Amino acid sequence: MAVSTDRLVVIGGDAAGMSAAAQARRLRPTADLEVVVLEQGPDVSYSACGIPYWIGGQVSDRDALIARTPERFEADGITVHTHVRAEAIDLEAGKVSASDGRTYGYDSLVVATGGRPARPPIPGLDAEGVFGVHRLADGSDIRAAIAAGAKKAVVLGGGYIGLEMAEVLLARGLSVTVVLADPLPMAQLDDDMGERICAAMCSMGIDVQPNQPVREIEVGTDGRVRAVRTDTNSFAADLVVLGLGMGPETTLAREAGLGIGVTGGIDVAHTQRSRSHPEVFAAGDCVQTFHRITGEAIHVALGTHANKQGRVAGSVIGGRPARFAGVLGTAATKVGDLEVARTGLCTTQAEQAGFDHRTETIEATTRAGYYPGAEPIAVKIITERGSGLLLGAQIVGGPGSGKRIDVLATAIWAGMTAEELAGSDLSYAPPLSPTYDPVIVAARVASRIETG
Amino acid sequence: MAVSTDRLVVIGGDAAGMSAAAQARRLRPTADLEVVVLEQGPDVSYSACGIPYWIGGQVSDRDALIARTPERFEADGITVHTHVRAEAIDLEAGKVSASDGRTYGYDSLVVATGGRPARPPIPGLDAEGVFGVHRLADGSDIRAAIAAGAKKAVVLGGGYIGLEMAEVLLARGLSVTVVLADPLPMAQLDDDMGERICAAMCSMGIDVQPNQPVREIEVGTDGRVRAVRTDTNSFAADLVVLGLGMGPETTLAREAGLGIGVTGGIDVAHTQRSRSHPEVFAAGDCVQTFHRITGEAIHVALGTHANKQGRVAGSVIGGRPARFAGVLGTAATKVGDLEVARTGLCTTQAEQAGFDHRTETIEATTRAGYYPGAEPIAVKIITERGSGLLLGAQIVGGPGSGKRIDVLATAIWAGMTAEELAGSDLSYAPPLSPTYDPVIVAARVASRIETG
Repeated sequence: MAVSTDRLVVIGGDAAGMSAAAQARRLRPTADLEVVVLEQGPDVSYSACGIPYWIGGQVSDRDALIARTPERFEADGITVHTHVRAEAIDLEAGKVSASDGRTYGYDSLVVATGGRPARPPIPGLDAEGVFGVHRLADGSDIRAAIAAGAKKAVVLGGGYIGLEMAEVLLARGLSVTVVLADPLPMAQLDDDMGERICAAMCSMGIDVQPNQPVREIEVGTDGRVRAVRTDTNSFAADLVVLGLGMGPETTLAREAGLGIGVTGGIDVAHTQRSRSHPEVFAAGDCVQTFHRITGEAIHVALGTHANKQGRVAGSVIGGRPARFAGVLGTAATKVGDLEVARTGLCTTQAEQAGFDHRTETIEATTRAGYYPGAEPIAVKIITERGSGLLLGAQIVGGPGSGKRIDVLATAIWAGMTAEELAGSDLSYAPPLSPTYDPVIVAARVASRIETG
Repeated sequence: MAVSTDRLVVIGGDAAGMSAAAQARRLRPTADLEVVVLEQGPDVSYSACGIPYWIGGQVSDRDALIARTPERFEADGITVHTHVRAEAIDLEAGKVSASDGRTYGYDSLVVATGGRPARPPIPGLDAEGVFGVHRLADGSDIRAAIAAGAKKAVVLGGGYIGLEMAEVLLARGLSVTVVLADPLPMAQLDDDMGERICAAMCSMGIDVQPNQPVREIEVGTDGRVRAVRTDTNSFAADLVVLGLGMGPETTLAREAGLGIGVTGGIDVAHTQRSRSHPEVFAAGDCVQTFHRITGEAIHVALGTHANKQGRVAGSVIGGRPARFAGVLGTAATKVGDLEVARTGLCTTQAEQAGFDHRTETIEATTRAGYYPGAEPIAVKIITERGSGLLLGAQIVGGPGSGKRIDVLATAIWAGMTAEELAGSDLSYAPPLSPTYDPVIVAARVASRIETG
């Protein structure tokens, strides 16, 4: 009796795609499932989030950013075709046409085409010296520009990439101007927290220019960037970094006819199956996902979700029930010695979602006040009025501050109230924490407004 | 119309007592409630946990360990009598006789007599050069001994105080031998984690001597400690530190007739009211509390619980309903660069409580593997077989490891399963975490054994 082997085709070989491939591979033997990955670039499974630190020199070796090479995947029974771009998906025939001239028939398909850096509709964006921070090639291009003598950097945007790039370019000796369309950096946090971040950035010597949407990249006659122009200013630049966020890359999915959600990402169910074509899976930065608290559709480009969603798709393909459980929008970063983190709903989001809410902000230290290295930390908590349910939290502070957001993220995930969190049993030792951890202090203050 | 003023008497002016006093004060005006604290020592509200670091020199000033002075409390309307020892409680008459010759009548009473360092029944314990690490005076005595030329320290016990004292004495240039009755340090953790700690201590140059209950403190003719003798060895010492744990100090409570629980601590309800005499409150290291998971009675001497329990007592006295929500046994410490933490049930405790359980241990790094300062971290998770409910967790690793226990403590507190925690949304940034936080990796591996 002949045994037929199914084929899984994965389009895109980064976090989501390779997680799906690896999980499906783990659950089904090679005789039962062939796994083929098509990746348009030279690398698979690399850390886009690490690129700033390769530019900054904290990471000396490009290869260190590659979690697993194609050879490693091949050794595990996953066929990886790098430099092969998927050009079209024929959903009816179950086939993918690729840039290598071949057509890949599939029994299961995972679309993991990733994200696309946001590009404002302004002149000059294609000038030499304007860079994204998305692919490893971006990293080597920026490193080359610095090596070639770039001195004046302008970073567009004050989100995670903006902050990280500001830090590393400053460390590399460039002057750094961060140009914001918003009044403050880190628009995912409330204004009072953004003000703390802004003040810290300025004290590090970063020139923050708020409320100035970019109108034009001024280009010299040599085709190189010369300056960034806003309505009121022109900021000289020989290096411009785009840190304006990531949108979903869905060109291929749209052309194939896969349903697209309100956020612009591929519309998928909790199993990562396309809602319009359930036989197709999609995962990672290219999909629309949902918020754990509000249930609303959102797009979040982040490696953690990409990994988990890919793993869910691979599990289902492998025959094991799985579902993605949603996102809280937890995120963290650092700029210099300042750590910044958030989770759940910020004030604006809580308002938009119709929550009657309260906020409390406390200031404390990361360690016992008398222990060396105790640094200021501010914790803000947003709760639902009446129930005291935790809705969101934000942290800004010195080293040791950022990862404390995980306690709040876990509490929100579990549906805890501020009062419950205030009573919980967190660890204490003077080198690691004050007697009351700052998270407990914040929860206690937030619960007090409910209990009187 | 005459208004009568109630009087609250608090016996013991450290974490639990002063929290009770402050909370009651906050809730009731001075015309309604007089608050009087009797403290046998010279200080109130000091950090016993900080004493090792004052000895080690990380904290230069004794006063830095004092959170609030008697004068600060007085300014807030709390009368503090230092150097006044409560000598007897007359429960029927509602009076406390004190060493100042006065009798303090009370309407409300909080017993917060604290803990007592465990002292093994061996000869020589009162020799010069044998120290506890409990009161600020212990700290100055040990500092004086070092200044006077002590070179060879023997630390009895390998718990939190034992580890911390080993670290700071080593840092002060003494040779340090840690003598354990148990096979491994940190008996609150499983053996495999204890082995990691033991190996790290040895590599720091700490001489760890396991399985050797102490039989005698050998004393010279000058009355000074000379050595610590076990069944098989004699360890030369000119300084001996007792790190054998803390028991409840209940002499006063016993003599008064307050009910004592099976653990030896004062038997209290969730409101911190004495079960035998509900008109009396007790809080802190002198009471018996209960485990959040098993509901069983336990005694835990730790400032975090003392603070919270005192606050509960003060709230109830102040007219606001409150209850203590139990302990998970969360704790953390560091020895050198090694951070150690635990929460919930260890394997032995899970067995004793009758749980059919599983354990999983994973190894990861504290930051993205390619980022400078990424250190090894081991996370062990104990789950209930079948349900996957989280029962306990332990962490041993480099800087940045220990406080991750709080995520696990919160998840256990909320009654989450390993699978739920594995799906949760924790923060990621290369300088702060790998893509999958080590806690998530551990939860995922632990959930896999349930889901197949």
